[in-house]
Amino acid sequence: MSGWLAVAGLGPGAEALVTPEVTSALADATDVVGYGPYVARVATRAGLALHASDNRVELARARNALELAAAGRRVAVVSSGDPGVFAMASAVFEAVEGGPAGWRDLDIRVLPGITAMLAAAARAGAPLGHDFCAINLSDNLKPWAGIERRIRLAVEADFAVAFYNPRSIARPEGFGRALEILRGACGDARPVIFARAVSTPDEALRVVPLSEAEAGMADMLTVVIVGSSATRMVGRFVYTPRSACA
Amino acid sequence: MSGWLAVAGLGPGAEALVTPEVTSALADATDVVGYGPYVARVATRAGLALHASDNRVELARARNALELAAAGRRVAVVSSGDPGVFAMASAVFEAVEGGPAGWRDLDIRVLPGITAMLAAAARAGAPLGHDFCAINLSDNLKPWAGIERRIRLAVEADFAVAFYNPRSIARPEGFGRALEILRGACGDARPVIFARAVSTPDEALRVVPLSEAEAGMADMLTVVIVGSSATRMVGRFVYTPRSACA
Repeated sequence: MSGWLAVAGLGPGAEALVTPEVTSALADATDVVGYGPYVARVATRAGLALHASDNRVELARARNALELAAAGRRVAVVSSGDPGVFAMASAVFEAVEGGPAGWRDLDIRVLPGITAMLAAAARAGAPLGHDFCAINLSDNLKPWAGIERRIRLAVEADFAVAFYNPRSIARPEGFGRALEILRGACGDARPVIFARAVSTPDEALRVVPLSEAEAGMADMLTVVIVGSSATRMVGRFVYTPRSACA
Repeated sequence: MSGWLAVAGLGPGAEALVTPEVTSALADATDVVGYGPYVARVATRAGLALHASDNRVELARARNALELAAAGRRVAVVSSGDPGVFAMASAVFEAVEGGPAGWRDLDIRVLPGITAMLAAAARAGAPLGHDFCAINLSDNLKPWAGIERRIRLAVEADFAVAFYNPRSIARPEGFGRALEILRGACGDARPVIFARAVSTPDEALRVVPLSEAEAGMADMLTVVIVGSSATRMVGRFVYTPRSACA
């Protein structure tokens, strides 16, 4: 059996941000498994089976991919951005943990990608130039009270904060609540970056002071970066100096 | 004048982890500016001027690059990993802020790269699969008391924590102190990943429980990832489940 499973990060959208390592794994794969819009980013070719699935079925998708690899297929599980950041790599290892013992011996690799906050930060300047954290605002899998506590501590630690999955139609109120917490703790002037679909034709970048930030400025294609107390503007750029500290 | 300045991330080491966007910028550049070992990673060619400088002269290097771009040169400032994470992008914007007004109108772009913690996490499994933070342990530019406070709050928030620049000959004691804080707050079993020079021929990966972690396991080529309370092992892999919360 020569099967393998590569969990591959496709980056934020542009082909120019896909690593050669990922391109090569896709060229060697017999099967591509992932959420529909991400699978659609992979070029079709003879002999390549595409397995597109819906959102919110990550564990079932991971099991399917592991079954294929165990049967000798060369499987690329694709994620947007980096597969290790709020994406499929964790789901694959969760499936390994709950699956047949033989899955632990499979050839499993994670191939990193440009995660959304790095692409967004690059467009805006260098807001993550000093200590920062990444918080997933999706509350599908965790209670909101825990998210709120984490936001408060992140601000107390004076991290720049990148928020992933800030807002969806199903739960519009969470991000608004996060902005309220931030306004209470950070003052009005703190720069907030709304970066939507960076590196795609739909890219939109907006930088506003916290006092003007509104929940409606974000959707599920947006990553939001809130500066630390040291983050500032120079011309059109936002950056955090290297010496920033609480 | 058609000068520009691109702050480009070379990724952790392997050519296969350099984005096509960065490769293309290097091909178009007339000048490459950076810390010596990073400039040495760029292939030489006729018409390309290499400007290698020492460590710890980031601001002077950034000014030099901006002067070249203002004079019409096409300048790539290279960083290892991602240029926006504890690297040259912040130094460039700091130099813009303190420089001639005309520098604010220069064509400046930041080209993201695979930062060390993403490459390290991919090798280990998915330790950054849920909320996490990145802390630079270098105290060249900030007081240690502030770093210590940030570590304590990061643990209280139950982030997985990636430590950059954990240890150097010039300041060997900081990382040991960080490990003491972690041991007091996290218990003995917390997985700690020491990832050195990932994707290079010198790559070394070591995973130990916090009780066995020692400062000497890290050097300046190492990124250290400490799991959250939910991070666990499955076979040889370390991962943080998607549902983790404090």
